[in-house]
Amino acid sequence: MEKIVSLCKRRGFIFPGSEIYGGLANTWDYGPYGVELKNNVKKLWWKYFVQDREDMVGVDASILMNPRVWEASGHITSFSDPLMDCKKCHERVRGDKLLEEKLGIEGVAGKSLKQISELVKTHKIQCPKCQAIDWTEARSFNLMFKTYQGVIEDAAAMVYLRPETAQGIFVNFKNVQQTTRKRLPFGIGQIGKAFRNEITPGNFTFRTREFEQMEIEYFVAEKDWKKIYDTWREEMNKFFVQELGFKKENMRWRQHDKEELSHYSKETWDVEYQFPFSWGELWGIAYRTDFDLKQHEKFSGEKLEYLDPETNEKLVPHCIEPTFGVDRTVLVALLEAYDEDSAGDEKRIVMRFPPKLAPVKAAILPLIKKEKLPEVARKMFENLKKHFVVEYDDSGSIGKRYRRHDELGTPFCFTVDFQTVEDETVTVRDRDSMKQERIKISDVSEFLKEKLGI
Amino acid sequence: MEKIVSLCKRRGFIFPGSEIYGGLANTWDYGPYGVELKNNVKKLWWKYFVQDREDMVGVDASILMNPRVWEASGHITSFSDPLMDCKKCHERVRGDKLLEEKLGIEGVAGKSLKQISELVKTHKIQCPKCQAIDWTEARSFNLMFKTYQGVIEDAAAMVYLRPETAQGIFVNFKNVQQTTRKRLPFGIGQIGKAFRNEITPGNFTFRTREFEQMEIEYFVAEKDWKKIYDTWREEMNKFFVQELGFKKENMRWRQHDKEELSHYSKETWDVEYQFPFSWGELWGIAYRTDFDLKQHEKFSGEKLEYLDPETNEKLVPHCIEPTFGVDRTVLVALLEAYDEDSAGDEKRIVMRFPPKLAPVKAAILPLIKKEKLPEVARKMFENLKKHFVVEYDDSGSIGKRYRRHDELGTPFCFTVDFQTVEDETVTVRDRDSMKQERIKISDVSEFLKEKLGI
Repeated sequence: MEKIVSLCKRRGFIFPGSEIYGGLANTWDYGPYGVELKNNVKKLWWKYFVQDREDMVGVDASILMNPRVWEASGHITSFSDPLMDCKKCHERVRGDKLLEEKLGIEGVAGKSLKQISELVKTHKIQCPKCQAIDWTEARSFNLMFKTYQGVIEDAAAMVYLRPETAQGIFVNFKNVQQTTRKRLPFGIGQIGKAFRNEITPGNFTFRTREFEQMEIEYFVAEKDWKKIYDTWREEMNKFFVQELGFKKENMRWRQHDKEELSHYSKETWDVEYQFPFSWGELWGIAYRTDFDLKQHEKFSGEKLEYLDPETNEKLVPHCIEPTFGVDRTVLVALLEAYDEDSAGDEKRIVMRFPPKLAPVKAAILPLIKKEKLPEVARKMFENLKKHFVVEYDDSGSIGKRYRRHDELGTPFCFTVDFQTVEDETVTVRDRDSMKQERIKISDVSEFLKEKLGI
Repeated sequence: MEKIVSLCKRRGFIFPGSEIYGGLANTWDYGPYGVELKNNVKKLWWKYFVQDREDMVGVDASILMNPRVWEASGHITSFSDPLMDCKKCHERVRGDKLLEEKLGIEGVAGKSLKQISELVKTHKIQCPKCQAIDWTEARSFNLMFKTYQGVIEDAAAMVYLRPETAQGIFVNFKNVQQTTRKRLPFGIGQIGKAFRNEITPGNFTFRTREFEQMEIEYFVAEKDWKKIYDTWREEMNKFFVQELGFKKENMRWRQHDKEELSHYSKETWDVEYQFPFSWGELWGIAYRTDFDLKQHEKFSGEKLEYLDPETNEKLVPHCIEPTFGVDRTVLVALLEAYDEDSAGDEKRIVMRFPPKLAPVKAAILPLIKKEKLPEVARKMFENLKKHFVVEYDDSGSIGKRYRRHDELGTPFCFTVDFQTVEDETVTVRDRDSMKQERIKISDVSEFLKEKLGI
């Protein structure tokens, strides 16, 4: 992981947030290559899950929502972590995380505050900072960020930063269904920021307080839920392996047991990834039943029913929620791509991104900055950049430039050399095999299109 | 404007935020067609201003930043509105806006709180709600949203929701310059959310508390600023007319006079658009001098210098800031596109989006749901959707379907009819002229590519 963090900073993928001010509690900013990588992940997801499917549409809802939304969703009462302080050194920790190392997730999930306090005592768990065994009782800490909207600071104007994008979908269910006339089963997808005041953020971009989600709420008739749920799990497998090109062996499914389930869910599975620090949650899929729509009916007084056009029956749909963390998916893309091998005598670092994820698709390199080489290279670059994200790079030795583009994960380098001026061919160097072949300049665009699958 | 708001809701472009709960103070959610339109605007901007330019790169910084950032930027002391209350009915207004109607922007800009209070008295301005003339003194109201990060609610953990994306660029200036090795002049672009606790949001999506910006900080040597500034104004003209296809006559440039200038700026121009309610700010371009980088040097203790590789001179670059509101640009795209004409005897509403902005590029319509028509249409749809955002639509009469796609702004409708089964041709109906011609199914993809300019 340290290698990734270091490469990310050195090559402009991800910088520590507010770094010149000593940072801000595990916030991270995407640099020039990181933002392209992240946008490629989001574009791929949007195309695969929203645009390419007739049973899906998208929305983009506000981060600030009416606070009644969070009463209805249960977040105001239930969305909290058990907080404990070390009385000696005042270290503040999550009681459940403290226990997890001793007892495993299964042993902790669903335990009450009281049970957590007692278990920590029974197992004599030490403070990770000062090794004392002197804890306060566990107390509930709500994870929602709150702020004040309008010009009076009182409870009436208090609003929350959404802790999940999902509710932006539920409150728009009726508007979306009515304007698009979609029939069950159908879903609504959304990409956007969410905020959780995590007690212990960490592990680079794995757990941050501000993060981006790609969420789907897929509405079904109750009787169909299980069959469709399993289809969605299959879709998530496909997206992992075929679309993102991640290695199957680094993924596993883990089911939440009864005590671990969220208050709204009847069945939840996580897609876990083998992160350098441990297996950890990457994506998830929950069967939320009709909990959310029913709650919003109750709290808003609006009917959120669906009229089946064939049976003329009114029903509140049930909901399956496949959810994807953007930042975690980008982190996995970086981890999957990272490799070290040797180029001749030199050790090299190479980011083996699938071409469609790569921030830069190709580099155009004039061998030297003399004679007609820059002119030819520049013309080629100008033509290619209409259709592809490409870089023109003429600084330093050709070997250095190859190394740089290996670390950026640029799949192809086209080098303009003396022969180019003679016969209008260039060498194309493959990032992974480092093999070079000559192709005609006039074929370069088709070559790239084929490699990128567009 | 009412017509636009109504169409936006009816056709799934934009819904009132949290609508089932009676909304939340002028928040708006983008529906299925709105999100595609908005994404198209952002994609176009990113390609035009970031990807296509060798002197530009992108970043994506966190919304939550170290609070010292806002001390350095001057937002904590200077980013506020003059707030006044009617003592009789407790209506709360912006004193400057109250005066603006009487005196015009020029008469109000740069006035102190005291001057505003006096002017309101002198001009005997009535409360817009209860007509009383009984105001409190104007007082300063900071527009930044604040929230608390971490588990203790005190000043140490207070953070702000960024009121502009710009500072996310400034704090990353050094990291970006060093990793990309860009030379002056060069710029950094960013798209992201920002939040301002406006006292009086309104006019649909024109002024909202949560909004999205597309901002550029373009770094130059001081001596070059004026020439480059003017080039950027030209670029903004081009983006307006050529890229977005907006009408030139609906745009004007307005310079901020000395008193209206922000604390950081030496010269600022607004691009104003003729909105239905009045001319209003759409985009802006400020010459921020070296104010921001110098302030961050002072507050962070880090050098934010640039080493000129030719002269070996160290300097703090000056900065030009072209800034674009995403939501306002989308609003203008909707306003520009809206038109009413007649189709035969019927009145029709048609959204004349340029094809590259249109949420749906083409609809594939089987004339009836019988014989081989759906089968042929579906095959055509499956082929096209690999490359274009298209819709398959078989519900209702063909006329109704045309009307629907006119209101969505779909530039082309391909109708599969009986002749299609005979000779593999379809009719293509042009949204704007409503003219129909027959083309071969095998030519449809090329036809669309040409129309979309891809």
